[in-house]
Amino acid sequence: MVVHTGRHFLQIPGPSNVPDRVLRAMDMPTIDHRGPEFAEMALGIMEGCKRIFRTRNPVLIFPSSGTGAWEAAMVNTLSPGDKVLMAETGQFSVLWRTLAERFQIEVETIAGDWRHGARASEIEARLVADKAHAIKAVMIVHNETSTGVTTRVEEVRKAIDRAKHPALLFVDTISSVGSIRYEHDAWGVDVTVCGSQKGLMMPPGLSFNAISDKAIAASKTNRMPRSYWDWAEAIKANKLGSWPYTPATNLLYALREAIAMLEEEGLENVYARHTRHGEATRAAVRAWGLETVCVDPLEYSPVTTAVLMPEGHDANQFRQIILENFDMSLGAGLGRLKGRAFRIGHLGHFNDLMLMGTLSGVEMGLDLARVPHKSGGVLAAMDVLKSKEETVEVARVAVA
Amino acid sequence: MVVHTGRHFLQIPGPSNVPDRVLRAMDMPTIDHRGPEFAEMALGIMEGCKRIFRTRNPVLIFPSSGTGAWEAAMVNTLSPGDKVLMAETGQFSVLWRTLAERFQIEVETIAGDWRHGARASEIEARLVADKAHAIKAVMIVHNETSTGVTTRVEEVRKAIDRAKHPALLFVDTISSVGSIRYEHDAWGVDVTVCGSQKGLMMPPGLSFNAISDKAIAASKTNRMPRSYWDWAEAIKANKLGSWPYTPATNLLYALREAIAMLEEEGLENVYARHTRHGEATRAAVRAWGLETVCVDPLEYSPVTTAVLMPEGHDANQFRQIILENFDMSLGAGLGRLKGRAFRIGHLGHFNDLMLMGTLSGVEMGLDLARVPHKSGGVLAAMDVLKSKEETVEVARVAVA
Amino acid sequence: MVVHTGRHFLQIPGPSNVPDRVLRAMDMPTIDHRGPEFAEMALGIMEGCKRIFRTRNPVLIFPSSGTGAWEAAMVNTLSPGDKVLMAETGQFSVLWRTLAERFQIEVETIAGDWRHGARASEIEARLVADKAHAIKAVMIVHNETSTGVTTRVEEVRKAIDRAKHPALLFVDTISSVGSIRYEHDAWGVDVTVCGSQKGLMMPPGLSFNAISDKAIAASKTNRMPRSYWDWAEAIKANKLGSWPYTPATNLLYALREAIAMLEEEGLENVYARHTRHGEATRAAVRAWGLETVCVDPLEYSPVTTAVLMPEGHDANQFRQIILENFDMSLGAGLGRLKGRAFRIGHLGHFNDLMLMGTLSGVEMGLDLARVPHKSGGVLAAMDVLKSKEETVEVARVAVA
Amino acid sequence: MVVHTGRHFLQIPGPSNVPDRVLRAMDMPTIDHRGPEFAEMALGIMEGCKRIFRTRNPVLIFPSSGTGAWEAAMVNTLSPGDKVLMAETGQFSVLWRTLAERFQIEVETIAGDWRHGARASEIEARLVADKAHAIKAVMIVHNETSTGVTTRVEEVRKAIDRAKHPALLFVDTISSVGSIRYEHDAWGVDVTVCGSQKGLMMPPGLSFNAISDKAIAASKTNRMPRSYWDWAEAIKANKLGSWPYTPATNLLYALREAIAMLEEEGLENVYARHTRHGEATRAAVRAWGLETVCVDPLEYSPVTTAVLMPEGHDANQFRQIILENFDMSLGAGLGRLKGRAFRIGHLGHFNDLMLMGTLSGVEMGLDLARVPHKSGGVLAAMDVLKSKEETVEVARVAVA
Repeated sequence: MVVHTGRHFLQIPGPSNVPDRVLRAMDMPTIDHRGPEFAEMALGIMEGCKRIFRTRNPVLIFPSSGTGAWEAAMVNTLSPGDKVLMAETGQFSVLWRTLAERFQIEVETIAGDWRHGARASEIEARLVADKAHAIKAVMIVHNETSTGVTTRVEEVRKAIDRAKHPALLFVDTISSVGSIRYEHDAWGVDVTVCGSQKGLMMPPGLSFNAISDKAIAASKTNRMPRSYWDWAEAIKANKLGSWPYTPATNLLYALREAIAMLEEEGLENVYARHTRHGEATRAAVRAWGLETVCVDPLEYSPVTTAVLMPEGHDANQFRQIILENFDMSLGAGLGRLKGRAFRIGHLGHFNDLMLMGTLSGVEMGLDLARVPHKSGGVLAAMDVLKSKEETVEVARVAVA
Repeated sequence: MVVHTGRHFLQIPGPSNVPDRVLRAMDMPTIDHRGPEFAEMALGIMEGCKRIFRTRNPVLIFPSSGTGAWEAAMVNTLSPGDKVLMAETGQFSVLWRTLAERFQIEVETIAGDWRHGARASEIEARLVADKAHAIKAVMIVHNETSTGVTTRVEEVRKAIDRAKHPALLFVDTISSVGSIRYEHDAWGVDVTVCGSQKGLMMPPGLSFNAISDKAIAASKTNRMPRSYWDWAEAIKANKLGSWPYTPATNLLYALREAIAMLEEEGLENVYARHTRHGEATRAAVRAWGLETVCVDPLEYSPVTTAVLMPEGHDANQFRQIILENFDMSLGAGLGRLKGRAFRIGHLGHFNDLMLMGTLSGVEMGLDLARVPHKSGGVLAAMDVLKSKEETVEVARVAVA
Repeated sequence: MVVHTGRHFLQIPGPSNVPDRVLRAMDMPTIDHRGPEFAEMALGIMEGCKRIFRTRNPVLIFPSSGTGAWEAAMVNTLSPGDKVLMAETGQFSVLWRTLAERFQIEVETIAGDWRHGARASEIEARLVADKAHAIKAVMIVHNETSTGVTTRVEEVRKAIDRAKHPALLFVDTISSVGSIRYEHDAWGVDVTVCGSQKGLMMPPGLSFNAISDKAIAASKTNRMPRSYWDWAEAIKANKLGSWPYTPATNLLYALREAIAMLEEEGLENVYARHTRHGEATRAAVRAWGLETVCVDPLEYSPVTTAVLMPEGHDANQFRQIILENFDMSLGAGLGRLKGRAFRIGHLGHFNDLMLMGTLSGVEMGLDLARVPHKSGGVLAAMDVLKSKEETVEVARVAVA
Repeated sequence: MVVHTGRHFLQIPGPSNVPDRVLRAMDMPTIDHRGPEFAEMALGIMEGCKRIFRTRNPVLIFPSSGTGAWEAAMVNTLSPGDKVLMAETGQFSVLWRTLAERFQIEVETIAGDWRHGARASEIEARLVADKAHAIKAVMIVHNETSTGVTTRVEEVRKAIDRAKHPALLFVDTISSVGSIRYEHDAWGVDVTVCGSQKGLMMPPGLSFNAISDKAIAASKTNRMPRSYWDWAEAIKANKLGSWPYTPATNLLYALREAIAMLEEEGLENVYARHTRHGEATRAAVRAWGLETVCVDPLEYSPVTTAVLMPEGHDANQFRQIILENFDMSLGAGLGRLKGRAFRIGHLGHFNDLMLMGTLSGVEMGLDLARVPHKSGGVLAAMDVLKSKEETVEVARVAVA
């Protein structure tokens, strides 16, 4: 049995720390998902999701992990043999490629070094080259949870437009919606893929597809077998405040409360808070003399900071020391960063002192694990947090 | 806004009333699904599921509705063009047929009147006739939630054996496991499909596949594209106490507590309790002079009683009167029983006085809705509950 | 360990069943009781209490049981050697006498048969006889929880006025406020004594004194030593939204939610609901051929029904049978009714079907305990509940 | 409305941060306080309290604030006109004096500078001088919550013994039991006064009296009127697992869980954890160049650190800046320290990273409030936390 003498610090880049209000909302008796009380709640949640995803179109909610929402995006719009263009920006873009291939979708990958976001120029070049319009969709990850690198979605949109290419734009926002500025409609995204357990401050178990008219049109003619993930039935049922099968009622209670909390704070404030915490975290990393995985200031993630370990030091051993000594969970390096990087999640229900507890734990852990570093990262972070000025560098990334 | 002046009676045949202990368990902070504390919990839950499903093989747990578990069962074992044999016993067997057809599975249906369970003899006849062994699976519903009719799974197993047919046996236990006796291994079931929100006393959001070696073997050669539902990756990850994607952590907390509660009571006692409540409910129905949908005493459901409305009376209007006057949700008639029947759920976390509140609400509702009936159903139900003797009729059904 | 297979029926006359919303409200992190967030909540609660107690004067809230509020009432207004007039209406009036005597207060008691409320005429006679105005206070119990008899407070007020006697009027409303019509100001009560765990639908742990200007004046000159219960310091601190010592923060969260729920339903509706449930319960008792302790229809309690056991039958054995067989707690006979009566609580967060579960349990228990009775009490209760008409008899009692 | 974007830091010296397990325990339905399930729980809690207070005698539990337990201690053992000896060590010792005087107890006070604990030698001198044994009790505060100074109780015990004086020894442990080593029996304490909301990790609302045989003997002959606080009735009722009046059931659930948590961690570990956090906090204070109120290393409190503000700086303005900027509540300076000191609570459910978040907030607050200080307190604290060695200075105080 694990003895927790205080609150565990859950600083993986998701699931994030769930607010008490959301947990308590979930802790209410399950009600009839076919009754009027439920329908009223459901319709309210659907409207709320539109406000959070910044869209006037439907946002579909699945009882599933975020991975399910990726599968839903693909099986509703593509057909076996279709070709898609993906930018490899980290572990999750790799996972989506594997997923696509399982459904006989041909994936053209733009290789990447896992330290940059998707490059709009390269996407543009590929699309321009695709005279036959074989590419049906461009798939990118807004915030690469595995690397702490954000892709500037708006730039990718412009690239597709410049190429005058009809491909759909799919964006993974699993760790961005609800914490990093995101505009489904304004940025011309066709399918937004999201999960509940990051910026939306909920436990895992719900996933989302925000969809454009163009995506809906594609779903009417594609030839991929599907049932659980089918949009058409969901859209029809949603109009009446229900779903085609039993929804995860108690997670919907949580979603209702999470939306309320995000709106009480105000989305602009939510974004600014994450941006500020990202900056403070990187200030600490710089002060320690360590290097973030992300190299371009325009692509710094406001929600996750992945840090490279100095040669000869194992990130997982370091993480274990921190877990055992300070009851804090940090994210592991994934895929090609396994053992070579660790990740600090600073998203969701999170404030300055939770961040300082987090960074203190990292700094003490560096010492206990005998990782070469300079002391004082926490002081550098405090310098950022104390300053009232709006941060500039990251804000620019997020809104650009 | 709905004002509840007391506890809502959730007497649909699922989701069932969730115990406070389970709700509270779910209301704990989400933890790292890749850490040691989680792994220890996960391994314990997996073992617990084996005990509840009565199997020594893996029980796969999906973050999804029960419908997802049905999709998982099919896409892991069948290939497009495969043929399966289904017994139409009610709305849910119809839904599974539709689902199968979406995946290009050819469905041979044994028609039914929605008032009986699947007939083993007829299944046997079809299998004997299938000399070429074109039928890859026999699909039945253990407890037809839409009709309150149970199918005697063991008899179906024997029929398949007598026919010496290699078809897999799929059983929908969404509303039976955890409330009606069920034996995955002893009854030779190949894929058991289940959901969290009925006998398992949880909110909706988790689903299950208990699988046999034969089903696993089939999953290694079938040709249905899949990713989210894939067994192979889950089995591999499960061995380490994890899942291939972020699990629904807080629902797993709930599952752990629900398993603990079922085992504190003892599965035999759980089954007997439901059997007794089914008998009391039917005693009330008989006393009212109404008719249950189920006609064969060997097939009475211990968890759901569907009641036919007298000609000229609308079941949904009746249900609405009860909801408005007594804050109780009853199940609607589904499919061909729409408006013609209502359903009383008496499963999950449920006791004698909750049942009496339920039946009192039904009896008062019959009066308020001016449905012709005899008074005193509640007295008949009390007669059953007062008697100490083990009930005989239904117990026989459940264990046969 | 006790295994609860469903929801326990807590049908003692308090603590009553606490609504989930109230329990969940209590389950939020404790905050600084000297900070602004707390003060804002506290001031809101104090205003809410005034609306519930129907007063424009302060309502003092103590972290204590209801018994503490009785002690507070006495030590703030009386001096050792003072004389008070009490009407013995049941166990609680006896307890208050003992309490008073411990503080050297001389108690003149109007004897009673425990089957009637306090008689205004007799109180008037005693006061008229007290030419010297030795009697400093008249103490009555609004709803005698031990007998299910209500005293018509307004009549007592009129009697005091007719006698032109300066005595203070103390009323125990521990089981009435929040469920039976009560008017602190309009009825000219000087000290109202209340607890949290009955009509206020909370767990036990808070108690209340609503006080008049006359009571406050008395508290400035009386000579009883006190500290914890002292009104003066509380009144002063309350103005700033605080208390003289650490308040029971989480119970205050519960109180805030309970007030909100009472007001969402509307106090008039709350009173009518209890009145109706009282009538239904008595209809059942009559149908069983049993006798309520209360004999005067003008004094029937809307929240508690005490029932006399037939000679030769032990009420506690009966209660135990019901607890063991049906997981329902009924109230014991207290004091001179010990073993001779049992009490059914029907107050707080309670609705028709909870009442029917309750009465069904009593009827089955009568049978299992072989208590002579007629069957069909539940049918008689349903007849009352089904009828739409406002009940007359009890309503008259409550408002008279 | 206050928007909390993350978890509030409740760093007053009580109420302390309540663990989720304790909050959730409290959030279960209230049960019958006269039934067998309750009695079993109550008896278990009473035994648990004995283990926590380190006594074989009864521990009485009151539904009240800690102040109530002080009143209980006095009214059960003393008589009007009795004389007691108190050491003025801070605000709470002053409060107890006021309280005693309200009950006509004559208080002889040993003046203090609020920066030291009670001096055993001075107590000894007073007792030796009291040839007539007029002093009935010696009253000290184990951990002065207002100053962060602990009194070495064992030394006071020895002083009384050396003086061969029969006075009872009363100890206020409101902020010590459950966090600082305390031995009711071994240290020969007669009445231990405690509250729930500090080391016991609960919300406020319960208070405690651990009592010696000598105290019980005194309670049989003293002449102070009492009812709510009366020990005799409580001791009698407690033997059957009940209380003389309705107990605060849900707070008892919380207490049961809190005892379980303290014992899972192990009391020795609990004490060591607090000692270590006290040392780390003082290291930060020293590094800032600030001064703790406590001046004697043998008397440093492991649970509260009171810090003097430099001349010309207002502690409350500083606290407000921290509350507004960092959502952290610090303790105010009380009484003669009002505005001149602030207090950091580091007790209860608390761990290293919560402490670091706390100290970071203080350091940033010093800067924002332009309080002259040196940067780097957090680094000094981390140096303490990183070191594995048992701390020496404070440990000695605690166990001496």
